[in-house]
Amino acid sequence: MGDLISDSVTSDLFYIPKSEFEFVLDSKLSKIQKAEIIASMCRVNTLYMIANAGSGHIGSSFSSMEIMTWINLFEVEYINPENILENENIFFSSKGHDSPALYNTLIAKGILDFDYIHKLRKIDGLPGHPDINTPYIYTNTGSLGMGVSKAKGMIFANRLRKIEKFVYVLTGDGELQEGQFWESLLSATNNKMYELIVIIDHNKLQSDTFVDNVSSLGDLKLKLISFGFEVFEIDGNEISELANTIKKSKLVLDKPKAIIANTIKGKGVKFMEHSSIDSDTEYYKFHSGAPSNENYLLASEELINYTKHKFQTNLNLELKIEKIESRINISPLNLTKLIPAYSDVLLEVSEQRKDIVVLDADLLIDTGLLKFKDKFTSRFIECGIAEQDMVSQAGGLALSGFLPIVHSFACFLSSRPQEQIYNNSTEKTKIIYVGSLAGILPAGPGHSHQSVRDISIMASIPNLIIIEPSCIEDLNLLFKWVINENNSSCYFRIESIPFENKIKIPSNLELKLGNGISIYNPEKERKNLIIAYGPLFLNIALKVAERLYEETNIPIEVINHPWLNNVDNDWLKKCSYNIDNIFIIDNNYKNGSLGQLFEAKLSECQIDKVKLFHKYVDSIPKSGTAEEVLNFHKLDENSIFFYIKDKIN
Amino acid sequence: MGDLISDSVTSDLFYIPKSEFEFVLDSKLSKIQKAEIIASMCRVNTLYMIANAGSGHIGSSFSSMEIMTWINLFEVEYINPENILENENIFFSSKGHDSPALYNTLIAKGILDFDYIHKLRKIDGLPGHPDINTPYIYTNTGSLGMGVSKAKGMIFANRLRKIEKFVYVLTGDGELQEGQFWESLLSATNNKMYELIVIIDHNKLQSDTFVDNVSSLGDLKLKLISFGFEVFEIDGNEISELANTIKKSKLVLDKPKAIIANTIKGKGVKFMEHSSIDSDTEYYKFHSGAPSNENYLLASEELINYTKHKFQTNLNLELKIEKIESRINISPLNLTKLIPAYSDVLLEVSEQRKDIVVLDADLLIDTGLLKFKDKFTSRFIECGIAEQDMVSQAGGLALSGFLPIVHSFACFLSSRPQEQIYNNSTEKTKIIYVGSLAGILPAGPGHSHQSVRDISIMASIPNLIIIEPSCIEDLNLLFKWVINENNSSCYFRIESIPFENKIKIPSNLELKLGNGISIYNPEKERKNLIIAYGPLFLNIALKVAERLYEETNIPIEVINHPWLNNVDNDWLKKCSYNIDNIFIIDNNYKNGSLGQLFEAKLSECQIDKVKLFHKYVDSIPKSGTAEEVLNFHKLDENSIFFYIKDKIN
Repeated sequence: MGDLISDSVTSDLFYIPKSEFEFVLDSKLSKIQKAEIIASMCRVNTLYMIANAGSGHIGSSFSSMEIMTWINLFEVEYINPENILENENIFFSSKGHDSPALYNTLIAKGILDFDYIHKLRKIDGLPGHPDINTPYIYTNTGSLGMGVSKAKGMIFANRLRKIEKFVYVLTGDGELQEGQFWESLLSATNNKMYELIVIIDHNKLQSDTFVDNVSSLGDLKLKLISFGFEVFEIDGNEISELANTIKKSKLVLDKPKAIIANTIKGKGVKFMEHSSIDSDTEYYKFHSGAPSNENYLLASEELINYTKHKFQTNLNLELKIEKIESRINISPLNLTKLIPAYSDVLLEVSEQRKDIVVLDADLLIDTGLLKFKDKFTSRFIECGIAEQDMVSQAGGLALSGFLPIVHSFACFLSSRPQEQIYNNSTEKTKIIYVGSLAGILPAGPGHSHQSVRDISIMASIPNLIIIEPSCIEDLNLLFKWVINENNSSCYFRIESIPFENKIKIPSNLELKLGNGISIYNPEKERKNLIIAYGPLFLNIALKVAERLYEETNIPIEVINHPWLNNVDNDWLKKCSYNIDNIFIIDNNYKNGSLGQLFEAKLSECQIDKVKLFHKYVDSIPKSGTAEEVLNFHKLDENSIFFYIKDKIN
Repeated sequence: MGDLISDSVTSDLFYIPKSEFEFVLDSKLSKIQKAEIIASMCRVNTLYMIANAGSGHIGSSFSSMEIMTWINLFEVEYINPENILENENIFFSSKGHDSPALYNTLIAKGILDFDYIHKLRKIDGLPGHPDINTPYIYTNTGSLGMGVSKAKGMIFANRLRKIEKFVYVLTGDGELQEGQFWESLLSATNNKMYELIVIIDHNKLQSDTFVDNVSSLGDLKLKLISFGFEVFEIDGNEISELANTIKKSKLVLDKPKAIIANTIKGKGVKFMEHSSIDSDTEYYKFHSGAPSNENYLLASEELINYTKHKFQTNLNLELKIEKIESRINISPLNLTKLIPAYSDVLLEVSEQRKDIVVLDADLLIDTGLLKFKDKFTSRFIECGIAEQDMVSQAGGLALSGFLPIVHSFACFLSSRPQEQIYNNSTEKTKIIYVGSLAGILPAGPGHSHQSVRDISIMASIPNLIIIEPSCIEDLNLLFKWVINENNSSCYFRIESIPFENKIKIPSNLELKLGNGISIYNPEKERKNLIIAYGPLFLNIALKVAERLYEETNIPIEVINHPWLNNVDNDWLKKCSYNIDNIFIIDNNYKNGSLGQLFEAKLSECQIDKVKLFHKYVDSIPKSGTAEEVLNFHKLDENSIFFYIKDKIN
């Protein structure tokens, strides 16, 4: 879930080299002792990995470290990286954002190349959430709640082949708010799936804050028992307890098993441990995002010292530490961020409109709702990670005369509650869906979070318009229009990445549905248009147009088209008059995109003489840095510049 | 869920007139006595309504009749049909397919016009599933599992207004397999929603057969208790017990309440009562669809005699019965049905392909899986009404080397597990999704079941092609190609309505992705094309083309284009050579449809001289008879004939 965009560590970075892992594994220590030391070593390298990547999830990587280490070292056997069938027992993480821990334990075991520790969230390295293109990763996770279902599919497959394998699925606790988790339990019980061992990393915190404050799970043990599971409860940071419980659980042969592993979020670094948080009003700071410089150094020192001590007492050895310079580029100053601007405009419209009710699915920090929640507490509904429930609740509110504004990341909000959104639309009420983290960037989290399909699947919802703002002025104008002027429902798409803004919106702008807005036009007699939307590609469009005018003297008009499922025919006819080429840049796949709508509209309006060229996300987006990923998909400034230059000449 | 298409009653039909209901309500009987008599009267009229409509859900209308009657008569107050806010307490059915019972109790109370009893599943009458355009229907249902979430939204709204209202939500028991139900319970408990009273019509059967055989709910009471509900268990066909329990439940002020109402499916007619079913191998016959002539007469007699007796003993009065002739049109003989053909071809390919595993979501009768289940029992996985779980299980099976074929109605399969389908697609495995009941017909069930948006939302799934067959030969060819020739995943879209087939597929046909197939071309020198897919509109296209050729001598070629998200550029260039007009008929909304893709392709290929005209479903589809609804949306043969004739001239 949450995947904050924060500043990066610029100091030196420290990690434990490969030799030390090999030494521990080859030593004469017991399995339990080995796992305990390896877990503490993996924490050092996990912190390094995240600091080096500039983002990632520390809190739940640390809470689950002992579980990951024990299972990956001693419960499963990895034989063939390409073929799940040949490996003995299966383990994967359903929550997925604990991938830094997962990767480090696989690296510690020596089956993932050690060099990967430098390549988290880098292209052709390790994606932000697990993906099967990485050796020994069995399934793609990052969308919550699917793990047990997938495991059941694997177990059915094993049974059909008459192979006995245990499948260990690690889940979060916040994740259990997803309906699919409970949906998936029934048939596990009915099919007596004793091969299934669900381990719940019960670290008590989810993306924003304590699970109990977001949407309490109540009596979790009783719930699992009532669903027919054999339930164990342990200290999940105690490896011996875990190992014994897994052993015991395997003896139960007529039921699926659940182990509630009580863990500490941020375990291993005192100031990151959730148990050190003062009160329930505070938000947990180490769920996602890189640590600050200062926090990195403090945490790294604590983890290294602890591991050194372990090495000394268990192995009588000095621990080697490698140091490297941070290679992180310092972000330019004065970057524009849309989420804080959204916070402000939401607050502003909500002062006047007392019918506004805001709903959130455990992303109130990422989606910018803190101010609203603090000011209009009674009009704020925290739904937990329960998007379907949230959207249908919004339906009930709208039927009762309120104006619900529903929030999540675009990737989740557009797809998990698709049927619920459609159902609401058939009631013809007005509901605003705000999907942030939209588009191909940030590319660190990987394709589960890179929302490049939301336009396609929201475009056909009746009575709903899709809008994406490109800069703060645009956001203010459009959001106020959506709330106060427009009668239909709206999917308001927001890119969350900070950006250098060059876009200026005319101050006297009058919004008209499906009418683009000219934001750059060096000469009246232009023959080419670039149409784009949103900060990323509209800014690239501007730079490309300016550069082309400078270098070739060819004038290109740049048009902001914030309407993603509406193109006005009259406007299109007017704006394409005397035009040779239209270039559209889409932050979405081709099918169902704005560019495809423009293509269709040109046919519909029988505008024959204009050629349309369409740049879009051409395949499942890569995980990596912004630069790497735009470059890979040929959507960076240079690629677009040469593409357009080539087509014009 | 299930909505079988069956033959209709042609005998005389019987119902109890309005006067009798008024008489009972005005009598001096106790509330309980009144409700008991009204319930038995409503059963007579519910049977009439369904027989007259030609389809509908008898089983769960009868099981829930006492609950519906009591609540609608005495627990809620209906004051303003337009404004939920003015009415006292709120009641709605989450399962929705029990709408005939719901409607009849509202009619019995005198607040819905009595004439509506003749208008079930007729245009501007009563839709197959509840819709807010009907007076006093508060929310659109028909998609399962959303009820509690919607109720919570209403309760939040009431709390914000400082109004106290109870919200009664009637659910099915099969419905509880949907994850959203469990997802929705957490916050009800955390918010101490004492206003929420969930009544579970626990009739033990779902669409296909016993809940326990499909996907057992296990210890339902313990489950609900573990989720923090105050739970009551009653005989749900005993009104006094129900009334007392509701009264008692209202005294609990710190918890939401659930009443497990043990009922009998088909209650009131001995041979329809589930308790009369022999063994667990049998399927329940009265979930959906009209009864046979013989069954209608038998059932009607039993219900009327019982009610007559009640009238006699309680009111000392002779019950009046009205008789009318059935106005049902007899369907022509020799109709073609694709579902049985699908059953056969599935069996055929599964003989050879031992890697095929079939998954179902409680629609094995409707989706044609009985034969497969009987023959390949170990390769059949019944998932229950749990589409998300089903799709992710398919993901796990595919990762383990099997070829999963996943089934549900198109409306549900394309939308409820959208994120799960996308997640699977990012793993690049091969999975076949078979969505039946696709398109605007049958129009009886209403828009929750009329799948006219599935193309739009499946079109952008990477590595997935959408295919729709038009006739049995087409289905066989395409399905075998999908299984044996094609490497990508596929969404196989099937229309379930029986149809008169005129389509002939060339016997030497070689399938090429994105290449249409000419099925009618009276003259080589034609200037016009009609492109369509699927039995409904391709047969209409044929009739229109033949009629135009006969009447005007203008030749039109008709092309079957079963590829719904692929159009091959070379083929398009070739087939549109020398063409003036292309007419596309889409069984889908415009945005994201095949027609829009053709429009875009014409631009992309810079085919300038061809005009494209697009017929599609232009608004949320109406519920009604096929004729009424096609006519309303101007998609009937005549409308299309004159549309094309007009454009050509």
